[in-house]
Amino acid sequence: MKFLTQKFTVNFEYPIFFTENLFEKTNLTFTKIFPQTYEFKPKIIFFIDYEVSIAHTILTQQIESYFQKYNNLPELVSKPLLIPGGEIVKNNTEYLKQVYEIIERHKICRHSYIVGLGGGALLDMIGFAASTAHRGIKLIRIPTTVLAQNDSGIGVKNAINFFHKKNFLGCFTPPFVVINDFNFLKTLKKRDWIAGIAEAIKVALIKDKDFFDFIEKNAFALKSPYNMEPMKKLIYRCAELHLNHIGKSGDPFEKGSSRPLDFGHWSAHKLEYLTTYRIRHGEAVAIGIALDVTYSYLLGLLSKKDWQKILNTIANLGYKLYIPELGNFAQNPDHNQSIFKGLYEFQEHLGGKLTIMLLKEIGCGMEVNEVNIKVYQICIKKLELFSKKLNEDTNLQTV
Amino acid sequence: MKFLTQKFTVNFEYPIFFTENLFEKTNLTFTKIFPQTYEFKPKIIFFIDYEVSIAHTILTQQIESYFQKYNNLPELVSKPLLIPGGEIVKNNTEYLKQVYEIIERHKICRHSYIVGLGGGALLDMIGFAASTAHRGIKLIRIPTTVLAQNDSGIGVKNAINFFHKKNFLGCFTPPFVVINDFNFLKTLKKRDWIAGIAEAIKVALIKDKDFFDFIEKNAFALKSPYNMEPMKKLIYRCAELHLNHIGKSGDPFEKGSSRPLDFGHWSAHKLEYLTTYRIRHGEAVAIGIALDVTYSYLLGLLSKKDWQKILNTIANLGYKLYIPELGNFAQNPDHNQSIFKGLYEFQEHLGGKLTIMLLKEIGCGMEVNEVNIKVYQICIKKLELFSKKLNEDTNLQTV
Repeated sequence: MKFLTQKFTVNFEYPIFFTENLFEKTNLTFTKIFPQTYEFKPKIIFFIDYEVSIAHTILTQQIESYFQKYNNLPELVSKPLLIPGGEIVKNNTEYLKQVYEIIERHKICRHSYIVGLGGGALLDMIGFAASTAHRGIKLIRIPTTVLAQNDSGIGVKNAINFFHKKNFLGCFTPPFVVINDFNFLKTLKKRDWIAGIAEAIKVALIKDKDFFDFIEKNAFALKSPYNMEPMKKLIYRCAELHLNHIGKSGDPFEKGSSRPLDFGHWSAHKLEYLTTYRIRHGEAVAIGIALDVTYSYLLGLLSKKDWQKILNTIANLGYKLYIPELGNFAQNPDHNQSIFKGLYEFQEHLGGKLTIMLLKEIGCGMEVNEVNIKVYQICIKKLELFSKKLNEDTNLQTV
Repeated sequence: MKFLTQKFTVNFEYPIFFTENLFEKTNLTFTKIFPQTYEFKPKIIFFIDYEVSIAHTILTQQIESYFQKYNNLPELVSKPLLIPGGEIVKNNTEYLKQVYEIIERHKICRHSYIVGLGGGALLDMIGFAASTAHRGIKLIRIPTTVLAQNDSGIGVKNAINFFHKKNFLGCFTPPFVVINDFNFLKTLKKRDWIAGIAEAIKVALIKDKDFFDFIEKNAFALKSPYNMEPMKKLIYRCAELHLNHIGKSGDPFEKGSSRPLDFGHWSAHKLEYLTTYRIRHGEAVAIGIALDVTYSYLLGLLSKKDWQKILNTIANLGYKLYIPELGNFAQNPDHNQSIFKGLYEFQEHLGGKLTIMLLKEIGCGMEVNEVNIKVYQICIKKLELFSKKLNEDTNLQTV
């Protein structure tokens, strides 16, 4: 049998900048990501979350002025374009098609740039469009939420939802550059300010005890908008932990079954769907973490003290630990609306064998390939009870 | 300005097997691409070109029997599915959607396999579906045409057409494995047998004089279906040259402006569109090569002797060197149906500055960043004339 082997290596590299007021004329960050001169001037186009443009009324004008001032920038081929943020932009493929149409109309090529400015959902959809048009246009992400700045916006994934399944279509495509502008956080709704902290809790729990201690100690400061200093620290460290994992775990494009950064996510994805996205991704993740932490405790992996500490911290940050959709069909795991359907869907999306991250101790995750639904059902009851008590008395020790 | 840097490397590797009668029970090739045992048995599903299944009536039955015999194979979750081949499958996104639906219905995951068996267009569309569903399902390509076996089916690209633009959407995603089964060539139409040789002429001209000499000497043998021995040699060497270029040129995912393997292709893509795909890709490439070779000669890069040798070889293989669509609007470069519109579209797709491959000598390409339309107009006239004379007298020396 004759054969040939194809073998090559691709190096990926991109910077993540942290700044404030990116398009103020004195801020040079944006000018530094492009060459100082060009042989062939590339194009650039902005897609901006409509809500962000409302909260920052001068933003689009600022961008246009910025491009007038600095002449090493690519050619701004259109006024910044406004599109909705949130899950709707991933659910309805018409938005994706609109982005393709704009790419086609303005002859945006592989050496040109698409900028997505908004939350994680908008960035996911724009990223998918940029990755697939002409087999890849350079993507600049400017995440505007806590969640996107510390997690989804800095990684290598993009996606849209299809067949009512979250992220059914997508690619692994590193961005050209990411710019976290903290100023955008100052106009977040309180709910979104808090929601994004969940991914920091997650990565702290599985990777970094000191970081968890920081979150625990600063829980009340962190939950108050717009207390910038602890939030900036949280975002920077959370981004750093996510980047380290993606870049150094040896599986940036998720070829294996393991996905430790999805700690707490199997139920979270399902909860988002079951609530028809009434709850934020971060809010769902907080409940998902509470569930898997409780499961880790009941299995005897995690100490009672650590379990209580984690649940208290989540609650102190203002998260719910239980919503009815978690328990509604929990006794009937095969019911379409049962939370446990999320386990199979999680496995289907990742493929391979079921792999769930649990906690051995704070700062140290541990993967398992089997789960005991009966124990999980007890966990759900426990969380419901804990949540009720919490409304009467916020002290976990009384439960 | 605070910043972090993300940096990682991804290694890609895949084998290209050459065999005959892949699904005959005694052929072990297919069993060797999978592990001998599994912890978790993955799934597999076949998408087969309808025309191939007509020409090879026992193929689907053979595949099912093969899966019954060998138990290390993944689980065949459905009878092989038949879809059309040819450009229609890339033009109409309904086919892509059907593939997504089947992936969803059968719960095909990232660790499962999708097999595309057919020509380049089918493989391109199936590859795009496989690359984007769940952010990437493992793809097995079984190319059935000369063109797909020696070029498109062995590389890292996939695509569909959109906005009437060839390959407007796509990704760079290496396959899991490629299997070239020469037996499929024996049922190709004569036209397709010949058409696929064009990419071998192309890569020989820019990379390997000895290979061009082989094609020149064997032109009459190569054009005769189904003279297998010279064709096998041609496919193997052509595949090897393409793989070497992709793997060793340092730009497998085409980040730069240079794309030497697209020698002769700027006009070829436009000719396919202008003829509404009446001509085959390879037939268009043969004309595109003739055009750029003539341009190289008129610029004084290529000797008259080499120019004549190349045009004779192309003609001896049975290709046309001119069709009316090449000349129709050549005097009016801005006309939508002018061949020269193809230059801008080529640049738009690749991005960056215009980069066209020409020939310095046989076996040695040379890139330029500017073209002289007036000289190209003369080339087109010359090809028209040459083509007319050829019909009267196949001897180039008389032109």
